[in-house]
Amino acid sequence: MESAAPTEKPQKQDKERKDQKAAAKAQKAAAHNQQSAGGGKKKADDMALIGITVAKADDLSEWYQQVILKGKMLAFTDIPGCYIYQPASYRIWEFIQDFFNARIRKMKVKNCYFPLFISEANLQREKEHIEGFAAEVAWVTEGGKNKLEKRLAVRPTSETAMYSFYSQEIRSHRDLPLKMNQWNNVVRWEFKHPMPFLRSREFLWQEGHTAHLTQEEAGKEVLEILDHYASIYEDLLAVPVVKGTKTKNEQFPGADYTTTIEGFIPAVGRGIQAATSHCLGQHFAKMFDIRVEDPNQKVKEGEARDKIYVWQNSWGFTTRSIGIMVLIHGDDKGLVIPPRVAEIQVIIVPVGVTAKMKDADKEALYDQVESVRRTLEDADVRVEVDYRETYNTGYKFNDWEMKGVPLRLEFGPKDAAKGVVTSSRRDIPDPAASKAELPISSIATAVPALLEQIQNDMFARASAEYAAHRIIVREWKDFVPALNDKNVILVPHCTEGECEDEIKKDSAGVQAEGQEVDVRAPSMGAKSLCIPAEQPEGGIKEGMKCVNPKCGKEAKMWVMFGRSY
Amino acid sequence: MESAAPTEKPQKQDKERKDQKAAAKAQKAAAHNQQSAGGGKKKADDMALIGITVAKADDLSEWYQQVILKGKMLAFTDIPGCYIYQPASYRIWEFIQDFFNARIRKMKVKNCYFPLFISEANLQREKEHIEGFAAEVAWVTEGGKNKLEKRLAVRPTSETAMYSFYSQEIRSHRDLPLKMNQWNNVVRWEFKHPMPFLRSREFLWQEGHTAHLTQEEAGKEVLEILDHYASIYEDLLAVPVVKGTKTKNEQFPGADYTTTIEGFIPAVGRGIQAATSHCLGQHFAKMFDIRVEDPNQKVKEGEARDKIYVWQNSWGFTTRSIGIMVLIHGDDKGLVIPPRVAEIQVIIVPVGVTAKMKDADKEALYDQVESVRRTLEDADVRVEVDYRETYNTGYKFNDWEMKGVPLRLEFGPKDAAKGVVTSSRRDIPDPAASKAELPISSIATAVPALLEQIQNDMFARASAEYAAHRIIVREWKDFVPALNDKNVILVPHCTEGECEDEIKKDSAGVQAEGQEVDVRAPSMGAKSLCIPAEQPEGGIKEGMKCVNPKCGKEAKMWVMFGRSY
Repeated sequence: MESAAPTEKPQKQDKERKDQKAAAKAQKAAAHNQQSAGGGKKKADDMALIGITVAKADDLSEWYQQVILKGKMLAFTDIPGCYIYQPASYRIWEFIQDFFNARIRKMKVKNCYFPLFISEANLQREKEHIEGFAAEVAWVTEGGKNKLEKRLAVRPTSETAMYSFYSQEIRSHRDLPLKMNQWNNVVRWEFKHPMPFLRSREFLWQEGHTAHLTQEEAGKEVLEILDHYASIYEDLLAVPVVKGTKTKNEQFPGADYTTTIEGFIPAVGRGIQAATSHCLGQHFAKMFDIRVEDPNQKVKEGEARDKIYVWQNSWGFTTRSIGIMVLIHGDDKGLVIPPRVAEIQVIIVPVGVTAKMKDADKEALYDQVESVRRTLEDADVRVEVDYRETYNTGYKFNDWEMKGVPLRLEFGPKDAAKGVVTSSRRDIPDPAASKAELPISSIATAVPALLEQIQNDMFARASAEYAAHRIIVREWKDFVPALNDKNVILVPHCTEGECEDEIKKDSAGVQAEGQEVDVRAPSMGAKSLCIPAEQPEGGIKEGMKCVNPKCGKEAKMWVMFGRSY
Repeated sequence: MESAAPTEKPQKQDKERKDQKAAAKAQKAAAHNQQSAGGGKKKADDMALIGITVAKADDLSEWYQQVILKGKMLAFTDIPGCYIYQPASYRIWEFIQDFFNARIRKMKVKNCYFPLFISEANLQREKEHIEGFAAEVAWVTEGGKNKLEKRLAVRPTSETAMYSFYSQEIRSHRDLPLKMNQWNNVVRWEFKHPMPFLRSREFLWQEGHTAHLTQEEAGKEVLEILDHYASIYEDLLAVPVVKGTKTKNEQFPGADYTTTIEGFIPAVGRGIQAATSHCLGQHFAKMFDIRVEDPNQKVKEGEARDKIYVWQNSWGFTTRSIGIMVLIHGDDKGLVIPPRVAEIQVIIVPVGVTAKMKDADKEALYDQVESVRRTLEDADVRVEVDYRETYNTGYKFNDWEMKGVPLRLEFGPKDAAKGVVTSSRRDIPDPAASKAELPISSIATAVPALLEQIQNDMFARASAEYAAHRIIVREWKDFVPALNDKNVILVPHCTEGECEDEIKKDSAGVQAEGQEVDVRAPSMGAKSLCIPAEQPEGGIKEGMKCVNPKCGKEAKMWVMFGRSY
């Protein structure tokens, strides 16, 4: 554990950062080996002994890998693209589950579980849908020692599995709305660059599937769910998002329209899709024959009513969210976890415990520490004490900082004499600004208040940064330079697919003079991220043209474009 | 919905039961068709229109299928042995998860998630283990349009996946104990007779895996977990279990010893394994090289300590538990759900609402119903109101009874005049005994108390029944007759495997004169269910012989034998 202790001066950190660049390369090779071969103990030791050895600003990809591995969020396996969600990340997922379950229960959505395997016949019932997923499906062909008669798909998503069931379950308008949700694992096999949390072959998510009598009711729910998704990001993960609708080019295969929340990774200036809520219209209902008699139709006594197709939605939220949170909040010391999703919100580190100290004095100090811990526990704070005596204080500070615990409380003989604990905020890098003395008599209220403050400050900082990098561009000449300045941009646009493709092509591979090329995505063009719900200037003014000079059409909406994950 | 309303006299139910036998056969054929072909709307209509058409005592298997399908616990898919867990059963699983998570968090067990896929190389690292599972593994061999270079196993259990990780994670005694748990889906392909919940190709469970420095610590945890498992059954599901240890013949492949809780299905007099907690000893630690330096070894300064293998446990609890609950508590009207795991604990049915009723009067009545509902909600009762006006009261009563809601409250003009609600307990078949009038002024305390009473009574009745059918048998001549009388039996036994096999053979296919043959298991022999922790008569008395006359050895323990699922 060689990284800078928080009390060291920033200059030293800067110096160390440069020294560490070489080390980072070796580290990277080691990590890659571990990924492909399962790794040996020696390599694992190397990983554990040193802190984060690369600055976030220098190599985001390498930084990200180190932060999640050393922060024990995730571990590699011997299958590329399949990851272990360690307790540090899985606990965040559980907080998300609890939060979202409470919200959807109020909407009368019911949780359930559908099988992992989908028959090929079933999967192929919706053409556009299967075309969208065909390249990504993993197939089971053998069971025990035998070849299966018919291969089975490992679910990439459950529309087709669930809607077969819906067609049996929904027999009257009285069975509507039908609102089901499942928390499960899905597999999407084919992709180019796996990236932990963001792009993996198996991931965890919830998929909600609902059927409604009217288009209006379905449309209302789509937005309600989008609000809940935004709330998970903003209120739990302290991650700002922009709500909007996808353009036709970017929507879900088989949907009428797709609403979305879009995040932003400042370190690379790229957008990232955070979650989507789709209105499927009556498309699947037609394929799966999900119809009911229209209760609102006026008919004469004894006359049969028309059968009408139901209106369906589907919406999903994945473990990708955890990766986005890490990318936005993490810093050169490691993870920074927002208090509301931190398994450990407060770590108490006893300080000033020396070898010379009398046993009785140490015991008295530890008794006081225990009393502080109990007070906080009673105030519903998730708190732990680091009593490890085989590690020094500097090691412990670094360890908990790397793991992102939002608040550290130090307590030693000097604090005891003053009747205080010394607090240190993880989210503020400057040690002077992050520290405070809290009277022990007030911690039951002061610590929860401080945690809320940290949560709010983290969100406010990230919001300000996103806002500063979400800029209005009116003319094509400013388009690529704005992208190269690590922004996402709002442009007047015709919203048509061909024009989007053209923009993507024309904004690819163009770097402003003197700007560093992003080696990971040197030629990535900008795509449309969403049509924001909140339109700049209250919407497109009459006569405005599409930003693409080759297009020449009238602009219809402000559309957010950006390079993206 | 033609089944008897609760207010009808028992004679009529008996008559109807006979009439329904023929209908049941047709029903059964329909259900089987549905299972194999996904079913049509017509057949599904038949299923929904009539109540449970077969008595539990007449054909348990057919009764079970109807109860779970019509009670909307589970639905079939077009893949045999893969089932849909509908909200009615999945909610029970969530209650179990919440309960168990709270218990294991106190033990510092951390939840996590490991990949669905396990490489073949990894799966085969423990020989005895892979032999136990080889016939049951489903293999993925294709991804998208390509054949995979190496096939991947769909996890049947995660020992091998997790212990590879453990061998990297555990590098010092300071990393111990390591206690991880995951809630996930597993697949076991090969089996003979699928049975919803009890034996399915995919099921949900939790699998806990822990590593300890000492055998003593591991052994203590095994029993702690077994206590929690027993508590889920007894305190949540109102299902009595017997704690014990498996004989060598019946233990987990690769374990030192397996502790178990064993349930009992009175309707067929068979035992059923409810959950197991294994001490794996150092067996897997040796295969996966999980070692630490012994901190307790006395060494001279600078001298290296010996490396010792860790002690491991694994323990699992599955959705089978829900099936056991249904089999024990369900009756001829359908499901009976214990209040603590009932999504809806109380259903309020407005009664006496007639077509002639004035709108104002109806509104006044509904206002009072809402006030009752709110009072109960504020008292943390999970309550709903059945306002459906297109169904009559009799239909509604049957519907909620079939779904197993523990308590029904009726409220009509007569109740309003008296200031009471009329309660009806689902767990008591006799309408006279199940009904009571509760003053509205007291419902905030009376209803929760009544729910607790129902919970306790359900457990007490099931316990008494299990106790009455768990009988001591000392001589071989009484062994088979006792089995045929639908008992499990406690016998003095040598605990040796060969003797067990002999008993199984000699108790198979033997029916006492005049006894009806169980067509589902005509020739099933008795196997050892467990060595109960609580031994009859304080243990085996000196000189007692094994119950098997061909064995002739000294008895070592009282062993519980029975026909079983």
